Amino acid sequence: MSILLALKGMDIPAWVAGLKEALPDHPIVLADEDYDPAAIDYAVVWQPDDALFRPLSNLKVIFSAGAGVDHILRHPALPDVPIVRAVDTELSQRMTHYILSQVFFHHRKMFEVQAAQARGEWIMLDQPSASRIRVGIMGLGVLGTDAAEKLKLHGYDVAGWSRTEKQIDGIRTYSGEDGLDALLGWSDILVCLLPSTPATADILNYDLFSKLPQTGVLGGPVLINVGRGALQKEEDIIRALDDGTLMAASLDVFKVEPLPQDSPLWGHPRIVITPHVAADSDPAAFSRSIGTQVRKFESGKPLDNQVDKTVGY
Amino acid sequence: MSILLALKGMDIPAWVAGLKEALPDHPIVLADEDYDPAAIDYAVVWQPDDALFRPLSNLKVIFSAGAGVDHILRHPALPDVPIVRAVDTELSQRMTHYILSQVFFHHRKMFEVQAAQARGEWIMLDQPSASRIRVGIMGLGVLGTDAAEKLKLHGYDVAGWSRTEKQIDGIRTYSGEDGLDALLGWSDILVCLLPSTPATADILNYDLFSKLPQTGVLGGPVLINVGRGALQKEEDIIRALDDGTLMAASLDVFKVEPLPQDSPLWGHPRIVITPHVAADSDPAAFSRSIGTQVRKFESGKPLDNQVDKTVGY
Repeated sequence: MSILLALKGMDIPAWVAGLKEALPDHPIVLADEDYDPAAIDYAVVWQPDDALFRPLSNLKVIFSAGAGVDHILRHPALPDVPIVRAVDTELSQRMTHYILSQVFFHHRKMFEVQAAQARGEWIMLDQPSASRIRVGIMGLGVLGTDAAEKLKLHGYDVAGWSRTEKQIDGIRTYSGEDGLDALLGWSDILVCLLPSTPATADILNYDLFSKLPQTGVLGGPVLINVGRGALQKEEDIIRALDDGTLMAASLDVFKVEPLPQDSPLWGHPRIVITPHVAADSDPAAFSRSIGTQVRKFESGKPLDNQVDKTVGY
Repeated sequence: MSILLALKGMDIPAWVAGLKEALPDHPIVLADEDYDPAAIDYAVVWQPDDALFRPLSNLKVIFSAGAGVDHILRHPALPDVPIVRAVDTELSQRMTHYILSQVFFHHRKMFEVQAAQARGEWIMLDQPSASRIRVGIMGLGVLGTDAAEKLKLHGYDVAGWSRTEKQIDGIRTYSGEDGLDALLGWSDILVCLLPSTPATADILNYDLFSKLPQTGVLGGPVLINVGRGALQKEEDIIRALDDGTLMAASLDVFKVEPLPQDSPLWGHPRIVITPHVAADSDPAAFSRSIGTQVRKFESGKPLDNQVDKTVGY
């Protein structure tokens, strides 16, 4: 009944404390400790080592310690057990805060306001109503749906796109290839929350950006990518910003992380760069959610938020 | 039945269009046109000239073209007619967006993130849950109440203070002198939405800042002033930021506006300065609200949002 905790770049003591509280009857072992691999029933992982899973002959479930599961699915020796995505309201709240903050930033022309402050200049600004700003969301999972609902609540005109058809109260939704073009042709601000899969690699490219409308009250389209760096062609983002196809971008994720110091993204005056912090996993909240799933599994009930390995999320 | 429009620094054509649509049967005249002062029933004003009101012998109601009414109440020859504050959901929405954006900015340590981007450095950041951040709101009118409710919805721990006791569902409220000290001793982020009155002049001073808690997950208290510049002692804000009594500030309003170029506020690294744009009046929305009040008044019903001249708002 042991839980193996194998996390890279995360706050291990906070996770140990969280899991101990959520599952006090389950021993917790760390990946760098001496442990009996046959005694491991559950693995909570982030960027697992290539050698991690093979010895775990009795592994029953893999839990991702963050929202994405691409770091697990690309593992070269992944055992055939269910993989459970982390879902908790704290994570949705954090992601929604980040998306709102970037929408507000571009809506309120904060690049111009900050530059004016640096010059000591009092500028006049138009203030379009949120109802005149169309925000399109690519990806309508738990996070995308929460962001769409909150943007709507704050008066924005919101639509969303997902691979398969979804219905969200009060939000226009599109799906499939044609649906994506319809969303793109409509969006003043494009928020990308898609998972990283073979189908989404490099989807945020120059061709896609040129489908966004050049009209609209913001003076040009804005890209907010909080999905994965693998989705974006970074040279295309710079090209589109430089020739006016994009007006501005907020990027939290990058092809290579940490973003290399020589990347031209850092110094671009129309890009907000944040170091993959849109929505950090909260160890206490995630541990509670893992606890719930473990108890369900052990009483023979189906797991929630199980990853569909054929589509990659 | 004429309406006199006397606005400084506002978009006059948009106001004329808005009022024509809201009250098509009421002639509209501009302050710099030739008009019969005795024919004016209503005045929609922003920063009225000293000579404006005296000739208006049949004036019935004064409407403020923005949320504040201090610009009217300090008029040297104010006629004894009702003054109506502008209240509309668009204004609340704009103010709430601004407050949320600044709360997110300081919650997510965006001063540090922006400085790191300028250096090309990928930094690690703690991400405290919103539930651990206490936001105190001074001023619980329509705007303060909306901001409190939305901050609560986004997971923050919210309390508010008002001169007279108010009840808001799910929000802890304080009132009176003792109540203010209780709010101050509690608030990690202090949002000021008070009106400018003799009682609130210079209320945001060093003594008040030193009542804010030095503990808390943000590393020090944050001030957000979206009320009026008359409320703040600007030299005290700088002193408090420089000695650590305040951690950061977001200021949308100033003692003198436009903020003079030689103000030390402009260049301070812990101050966000915006040029009094937190919540611009929306001419169309305000005109609709004025239309509603004019029709109420003309059918003998009481006016909403009337200013209490004895307290100043």
